[in-house]
Amino acid sequence: MREFVLYSRLGRTDSKFVNLHDAGRLDVVYECIVASMFLSHGIRKDAVFHAALSGPPSPPVHLKIDGATLHDVRTDEKTWEKILRKTLAGQTHPGVTSCKKSFEAFLRERAEASQKGIYVLEEKGRNISELKLDGNVMFILGDHIGLPRTVENFALRYAEKVSLGRKPYLAASCITILNYLMDSALD
Amino acid sequence: MREFVLYSRLGRTDSKFVNLHDAGRLDVVYECIVASMFLSHGIRKDAVFHAALSGPPSPPVHLKIDGATLHDVRTDEKTWEKILRKTLAGQTHPGVTSCKKSFEAFLRERAEASQKGIYVLEEKGRNISELKLDGNVMFILGDHIGLPRTVENFALRYAEKVSLGRKPYLAASCITILNYLMDSALD
Repeated sequence: MREFVLYSRLGRTDSKFVNLHDAGRLDVVYECIVASMFLSHGIRKDAVFHAALSGPPSPPVHLKIDGATLHDVRTDEKTWEKILRKTLAGQTHPGVTSCKKSFEAFLRERAEASQKGIYVLEEKGRNISELKLDGNVMFILGDHIGLPRTVENFALRYAEKVSLGRKPYLAASCITILNYLMDSALD
Repeated sequence: MREFVLYSRLGRTDSKFVNLHDAGRLDVVYECIVASMFLSHGIRKDAVFHAALSGPPSPPVHLKIDGATLHDVRTDEKTWEKILRKTLAGQTHPGVTSCKKSFEAFLRERAEASQKGIYVLEEKGRNISELKLDGNVMFILGDHIGLPRTVENFALRYAEKVSLGRKPYLAASCITILNYLMDSALD
């Protein structure tokens, strides 16, 4: 199982927003969901996406999208605006759940429960080409502002920094590239 | 200069649409523009994106986005819905132009004018890892339906089929991956 974790510094934690962009950049969360989950005409059953929403009014909210059970979805923003609004209002959608859990508690639990490789994406990390990507890994990414220093320091107790090179990619592009690198390694 | 060409089978050719999705999937065109042009907090100055819009009411329209002159843009869909609507109504935006030209005429001109490598993305092509990517290449992609057979046959007079592997990626994901592979080759 391949997992992606987006730390969303300002991502809104209730359903009272006008649009995803103005909800603390939940549009970035949406783009990362599409990058994590969608192939052309299909869903990646082995992918899980998490967002640690840390914006107002009641952080933290841990959002999880599980490719194994996700259905009734399309790639467009309107679809996901509806799903995220519903989820943040406490309702459910197949494959989408939310709970009150901090990024730190989530990461500690996961690190203690498994031997899975955990990596923080960071331009100055070790180059990804040096890793053996077996598809059973977890990648942690920041949103458009990047990971807060304290969050990064916490994550590095359990994770190693890896880099996709010198170019600063959009968070969703990082996920697309990581999915591709894992596909290629497993092909 | 790296160039991406999306053949959009049904992409609307005037500005009378309600939203990008229902305009013959101009949302796919939008996603490909973002994948072609945007880094985190920056535009790729060496990238050019073309869309061959072939939908109603007056095909063909050749849309061109040039990273060298593009400005006043963001990555969100609303921004690009406005720009595409304006462009298709005959107005201009810095770095965005449209003209009446068929995909075939465009490709013939370009192929005759330069020795640039031209490739058609196609799952059954030669694996991309066998190519030397020097950043001076042009990639042709189909939209969510794929290239029509006659268009592909025409393109193959000038281009070679290359593949990103066995997985069928979204068009925008293909562009993100190609940009990454070129970045890595040039790093």
